[in-house]
Amino acid sequence: MNYNKNAVGRDIPEYLEGIGELHPFEGEGKYLRTDRKASPKIRYGNKEKKLLGSIEEAVKKSGLKDGMTVSFHHHLRNGDYVVNMVMQVIADMGIKDITLAPSSLSPCHDKLIPLIEQGVITGIQSSGLRGELGEKISQGVLKKPCIIRSHGGRARAIEDGELHIDVAFLAAPCCDEYGNMNGRYGKSACGSLGYAIVDAQYADCVVAITDNLVPFPNIPASIGMMYVDYVVEVEAIGDPKGIVSGSIRFNDNPRDLLIANNAIKAIKAAGLYKDGFRFQTGAAGSTLAVAKLLREDMKKDGIKASMALGGITGYMVKMLEEGLVDGIYDTQSFDLDAAKSIGENPKHFEQTASSYANPNNPTPAVNTLDFVLLGALEIDTDFNVNVMTRSDGVINQAVGGHQDTAPGAEVSLVLAPLVRSRNPIIMDKVTTVCTPGESVDVICTDYGIAVNPRRQDLVEKFKEAGLETIDIKELQKMAEKLTGKPDEIKFSDEIVAVVEYRDGSIIDVIKKEA
Amino acid sequence: MNYNKNAVGRDIPEYLEGIGELHPFEGEGKYLRTDRKASPKIRYGNKEKKLLGSIEEAVKKSGLKDGMTVSFHHHLRNGDYVVNMVMQVIADMGIKDITLAPSSLSPCHDKLIPLIEQGVITGIQSSGLRGELGEKISQGVLKKPCIIRSHGGRARAIEDGELHIDVAFLAAPCCDEYGNMNGRYGKSACGSLGYAIVDAQYADCVVAITDNLVPFPNIPASIGMMYVDYVVEVEAIGDPKGIVSGSIRFNDNPRDLLIANNAIKAIKAAGLYKDGFRFQTGAAGSTLAVAKLLREDMKKDGIKASMALGGITGYMVKMLEEGLVDGIYDTQSFDLDAAKSIGENPKHFEQTASSYANPNNPTPAVNTLDFVLLGALEIDTDFNVNVMTRSDGVINQAVGGHQDTAPGAEVSLVLAPLVRSRNPIIMDKVTTVCTPGESVDVICTDYGIAVNPRRQDLVEKFKEAGLETIDIKELQKMAEKLTGKPDEIKFSDEIVAVVEYRDGSIIDVIKKEA
Repeated sequence: MNYNKNAVGRDIPEYLEGIGELHPFEGEGKYLRTDRKASPKIRYGNKEKKLLGSIEEAVKKSGLKDGMTVSFHHHLRNGDYVVNMVMQVIADMGIKDITLAPSSLSPCHDKLIPLIEQGVITGIQSSGLRGELGEKISQGVLKKPCIIRSHGGRARAIEDGELHIDVAFLAAPCCDEYGNMNGRYGKSACGSLGYAIVDAQYADCVVAITDNLVPFPNIPASIGMMYVDYVVEVEAIGDPKGIVSGSIRFNDNPRDLLIANNAIKAIKAAGLYKDGFRFQTGAAGSTLAVAKLLREDMKKDGIKASMALGGITGYMVKMLEEGLVDGIYDTQSFDLDAAKSIGENPKHFEQTASSYANPNNPTPAVNTLDFVLLGALEIDTDFNVNVMTRSDGVINQAVGGHQDTAPGAEVSLVLAPLVRSRNPIIMDKVTTVCTPGESVDVICTDYGIAVNPRRQDLVEKFKEAGLETIDIKELQKMAEKLTGKPDEIKFSDEIVAVVEYRDGSIIDVIKKEA
Repeated sequence: MNYNKNAVGRDIPEYLEGIGELHPFEGEGKYLRTDRKASPKIRYGNKEKKLLGSIEEAVKKSGLKDGMTVSFHHHLRNGDYVVNMVMQVIADMGIKDITLAPSSLSPCHDKLIPLIEQGVITGIQSSGLRGELGEKISQGVLKKPCIIRSHGGRARAIEDGELHIDVAFLAAPCCDEYGNMNGRYGKSACGSLGYAIVDAQYADCVVAITDNLVPFPNIPASIGMMYVDYVVEVEAIGDPKGIVSGSIRFNDNPRDLLIANNAIKAIKAAGLYKDGFRFQTGAAGSTLAVAKLLREDMKKDGIKASMALGGITGYMVKMLEEGLVDGIYDTQSFDLDAAKSIGENPKHFEQTASSYANPNNPTPAVNTLDFVLLGALEIDTDFNVNVMTRSDGVINQAVGGHQDTAPGAEVSLVLAPLVRSRNPIIMDKVTTVCTPGESVDVICTDYGIAVNPRRQDLVEKFKEAGLETIDIKELQKMAEKLTGKPDEIKFSDEIVAVVEYRDGSIIDVIKKEA
């Protein structure tokens, strides 16, 4: 196998059986592949009933055959029934060699493992791979290597024709007989359907699967009937407990607070805390703590944000309702409060994954961010971040919007504890590069703040503001003092997954456990 | 020139200079052109300012060159300033041979005539051509023949790649610096931007032109920043008086009432007046009178409609607010009440022209109609309808959604007086076929109702309901008794426009005045 070293120093094979030629990552904004997007299939409108009696009938009508690609969305998260349900029908129908291309997968999808072993599923393309499924893939159970993409990268891959979806099976919490659907109402309400919209626009055939068939016209429709070929009603598309948690509540873990306080200091020192600022924060402990601290300060100081972006929690909704934020762009609603709000507040705006983060359109929303708060499993001294593999090298998480928001935002802040489960977070080389160091500006830990030396403007601003920072190598030493130098992980030579950069080049590969 | 006779008996040349090969109309649903839609241009996101200082700068940055195609929307109707303003800049920059492809044109665009004479504009593709501009085109002033398309046909032509837009200049009544726009607010508010959305999705370059630059994020955005390349602020994009009339009020013209009463009888006799019905009505006198009569009956009878479609008036909004209609699909808002409602009522839903009427998607909204109420300039004894040329053969009106809703709806009713300005409406052959007779089911005049013999099911139902009908040839005789047989119009051999059927085939040609 011939290898090319990519811009983050990883050896990328020129060609990989089951995927094809690989283009090594060259750096942000370097790989401009093509001039034109993919061209969706034309379906000539007719007046036949779209509502079918079963998933099996829909699979038959869709024309699904061996070797094709099916897609799903992950808005039902760990409560999703649809992926397992549809894939089992496909298996029972004797269809094989399917590439599964959902926007992400959760631990509930461990049930797919037998279908992988039987050769029903031979390829997976997803942002996330978790639980036993991730472990099995790390053991090499899947025939072809996985392709791991960010949310923006997936939208790009669909729109640019790299990920061609033959049939999209879309879980629809609220749907009418023509396929007008949204995620706002019903027992399986999930809020935004942002990831699914791109699938609906580009798949050759779109099947809506609903447990809440409502009278026509189901408007507002996040995905309209012009995109939907068939509708199937089932008992349940998911387990509400797994779809949305209740309101995500702030936890008072002192370590998270310490990290959050450092992030707040960095945001202020960077001059980002001012009227009209635009930000994205996650639902993790420390980033949620930042939201809480920001909100308190904003109230006190009379500062307002103009826009909150990303996966949205009830906390953001509260800030919207209080007038602390002018508007929310929501690709994914994390809790019941967010799901409720998107149906009621016109300033809580549903957006597609492409509008959110596809680098190949004039302004993905990530490009309007002043700052983003991100997590990390590992960070290396080149500021590369791993959000996909565990400290033992096993696939376990999701790339999500990490790769997209980090370069999009004016300043990206990665929040992480210095040590997690006796493993140092800062190291010489991360196990898997998901986001390149050139996109990562500030590291906020419980032991101090490190600034990427590429951002001399921030170094200056922090100095002016009197904010103390630490060289990342010093942070690494502090971490290793607490944990010792971690052992090197042993891998075999077999590649079980490639991690795509959002532009379609390969930023890293994941190898089989030794 | 070689000609082919099409399915409505018109001679269509095989080839036309300035357009190319022409495919003769074969009948509803017969011409399936291609497998895949057009592929939009990829623009790689960057962080450059989109807000430019002038239209000229935007034209320069757009890369517009001689021979290219520009598009506009007609949501500002006869109040539009943008088409004239932009075309004058293009002319002043010395750019020539431009094809102008707006969704429609109004009398205010008579100012384009000098640009046509100067060779700046050499082609026009539009749904409507009115006023002096229509007259001049009928006199052969334009270099290439016009292409006249329905609203659904235009969406199809854009999506399927037949109408390639190099630069779309989109009037934006409410817009932020990134191009997030809607038509809901501002001094030039027009309501729905439904026709413009397809342009934004498929044009190689999109320029927003606004007189109401609002802070980011301008949400809900009918067209989002992911589609917009540049933004230009101008003093005014239109004259509010021409953009929307005040509430369209019911007139009590007795002839309109007579026609409307016949339509109501036909609707009821056809069994279409029942809970959950779906309908489209226009803003013309007689169709608006039908809405008024329907509303009164519905209140009395406790009947509710599920969906109202099309160009929306305040009258529909009132019915929505009264709970007489469950939801409105709005491609175009005809008055201020409708424009206001679309911003406030989530059940008043903005839809694209493609979602409305493009025959080449699984379910254009027109396919869900139980009935549609349409107008006509002329109707012939084969039920073909002309909505484009005057009785003297001069281009003067618009195809609009006529061609789209007539075949889409379960029953299409054409409402017209038997005689208009001393001209009979029913004749041997309409001057220009816009909608083929096979799509036209019932003619409601002030002198009686005619049913298309192709619809024996309706003939039976009307008989059962005791509703008297008249053979269309009898109606013609009655008309001619009042007016005399009209003289035949003399045309030259030169073709000044082709009328496309919604599928891209040619249903008729319009010739130069003799």
